[in-house]
Amino acid sequence: MENVCILGAGSTKYGRLNEDIIEIALAASVDAIESAGISPRDIQAGYLSNVFGVADKQVHMAPVIMSNLGISHVPGLTIESACGSGSVMFREAFANIRAGFYDCVLALGVEKVTHTGTNQSTTLFSYCSDFFYEGGNGASFPGLFASIARAYMTKYKANEEDLAHVAVKNHENGLLNPKAHVRKKITVEDVLNSPVVASPLKLYDCCPFSDGASAVILCNENFAKKSGKPYVQVIGSGRGGSPAAVQGRNDISTIPGTVIAAKQAYKMAGISAHDVDFAEVHDCFTIAEIIDVEDLGFFPKGKAAREIRDGATSRKGKIPINPSGGLKSKGHPIGATGIGQIVEVFEQFSGQAGERTINDAEIALTHNFGATGASAAVHIFKKVN
Amino acid sequence: MENVCILGAGSTKYGRLNEDIIEIALAASVDAIESAGISPRDIQAGYLSNVFGVADKQVHMAPVIMSNLGISHVPGLTIESACGSGSVMFREAFANIRAGFYDCVLALGVEKVTHTGTNQSTTLFSYCSDFFYEGGNGASFPGLFASIARAYMTKYKANEEDLAHVAVKNHENGLLNPKAHVRKKITVEDVLNSPVVASPLKLYDCCPFSDGASAVILCNENFAKKSGKPYVQVIGSGRGGSPAAVQGRNDISTIPGTVIAAKQAYKMAGISAHDVDFAEVHDCFTIAEIIDVEDLGFFPKGKAAREIRDGATSRKGKIPINPSGGLKSKGHPIGATGIGQIVEVFEQFSGQAGERTINDAEIALTHNFGATGASAAVHIFKKVN
Repeated sequence: MENVCILGAGSTKYGRLNEDIIEIALAASVDAIESAGISPRDIQAGYLSNVFGVADKQVHMAPVIMSNLGISHVPGLTIESACGSGSVMFREAFANIRAGFYDCVLALGVEKVTHTGTNQSTTLFSYCSDFFYEGGNGASFPGLFASIARAYMTKYKANEEDLAHVAVKNHENGLLNPKAHVRKKITVEDVLNSPVVASPLKLYDCCPFSDGASAVILCNENFAKKSGKPYVQVIGSGRGGSPAAVQGRNDISTIPGTVIAAKQAYKMAGISAHDVDFAEVHDCFTIAEIIDVEDLGFFPKGKAAREIRDGATSRKGKIPINPSGGLKSKGHPIGATGIGQIVEVFEQFSGQAGERTINDAEIALTHNFGATGASAAVHIFKKVN
Repeated sequence: MENVCILGAGSTKYGRLNEDIIEIALAASVDAIESAGISPRDIQAGYLSNVFGVADKQVHMAPVIMSNLGISHVPGLTIESACGSGSVMFREAFANIRAGFYDCVLALGVEKVTHTGTNQSTTLFSYCSDFFYEGGNGASFPGLFASIARAYMTKYKANEEDLAHVAVKNHENGLLNPKAHVRKKITVEDVLNSPVVASPLKLYDCCPFSDGASAVILCNENFAKKSGKPYVQVIGSGRGGSPAAVQGRNDISTIPGTVIAAKQAYKMAGISAHDVDFAEVHDCFTIAEIIDVEDLGFFPKGKAAREIRDGATSRKGKIPINPSGGLKSKGHPIGATGIGQIVEVFEQFSGQAGERTINDAEIALTHNFGATGASAAVHIFKKVN
């Protein structure tokens, strides 16, 4: 088995973008290719993640990207796993490099939905739920995560202020990220006073709808070493699933797919949660981040809210979470998000994270899921100089 | 590297189906699981192919399928590559088994579009072209393949009757396939007299819009042997790409992605085109089959039309093509088609093909592409008793 490395990374700004989906995707791809110092002709396969290309009238997007990069002979494909598409796609690209099928591939995530408007986006996103049980009965994601928040708050005596602290911390980080969608310092009071979306979740408990693209160049270690450039090694990868509908779960204060994926990834990497220096986790809603950091083993079950309040997850805390700003502030272009997290790891490890740099970090983890966690993926990375 | 085997296969009828997309997908999955004689709990990952789940309000479909099979912990994902989705997805499932990441996976393709009507289906399908250059300017697939047909006919002095012979042969085969969409014997005159869709292509030169699902169980050879059942071995796999827009190609009487994919697959299998006993190829339009069988090396360039007229591709010919009836008669549920071809190989090799059985066949090839061939995949199979 080959060691798998990230040699370059690139991203567009996340937010409301005017370019079409192909232009966005190409911008991130070119950025990653230049970052890796390779030629497009070094790319042997194109792995894309995207969910609603249909909203911009382009599915079968990979060959269009390859053709625009001047490498139309290169096979491409699109992988979809709702909001977890990026990391699920990354896992497949990882597996192909690890098995020796390719030496170097492009892993590109992209989404464009803001032009459809909030109502249409909410409708489209609801198709990512178990539509027969959830979306089709009016349960959109804010409602589903509100149920999860109520269950967690009841079981572990957490409150709305606990949720707000997650948003405040992520907005602080996102303010330092020039590519973040929502760059705005907020207070706990701002969150508590923002309009209710689905009680107990308020506007500032929810991530935005974003457009954007992120890309990384994956290669084997021999390829990476030949480049003479610093790179990041992928040392762990795990995938897991949860019952698609929230109603099918025994306990909704945890996400089973996260627990399964994390266990696999830690085992492959030969490390435990305590060895991780920082993590990018899936904070589509503030409650998700609280549950994530427990499911990933950073804190015991029911203890994360207190730790977050006490600063344990801030940039200088014992386990910094979402230094990029997370989905909450950096934004959530759903097909790109999982790759965007990995771009943050690359930037952190290659001295490009500016003021949001986590000092002395050498091991990082990314965690990304689809819908309410029906599909989840965890990856672990090591800095190599 | 592990040997990769197909232990079971299943399919719904192709056609205009009333069930929702999840019911269709589950029917084929259960069929494949029973055919393999395994329990759902033997499945370690779910690979799905689908293009327009959005048309039936369900994307992020894999976790819904896994949950309905009672294995919600199992990671799933969806792969899209337009009409080539099934084979492109199969390639990823194959790669994961071959590399040893899983022992046994479900590879399931599904599509449901007929309820949207012909106009909406045509519009949706046009998003699979390079929309900026093609679909967005009114070039739908019948028009694009009509251009390809004109180029081929001009270069190689073929005519509309040559195209018609492909349809007649595939309808003859499909008549023997109880799961085929269009089971109707037709004559060359019927084809020539059918309504013009995009000259020179007439209605009977075009495959139908179909709903349907097909599934196979993939496993390593150790798993297959333990079952004590006959199985089919996957001995070759290749992927290739072509310029996404037809206008970007030097010669449109060939599909570059097919040539690349076939070369890789033959090399991996250690065989040549002459060793193949029958093939399922991508006949979305009659002209496509003529080009395919040349690009795959069964006939020299420009010679296929004459050979097809002379019966070389009929069930008793020297290289039977599309014994299932092909996309033309069996139908074309775009996300399922590539897997449906593999189901035909399994049925042929396991004595379930009835009157359409190709006698003494031991090596088979499947060829499937997306759009006008922008993404293509070729797989080669060997019968094991």
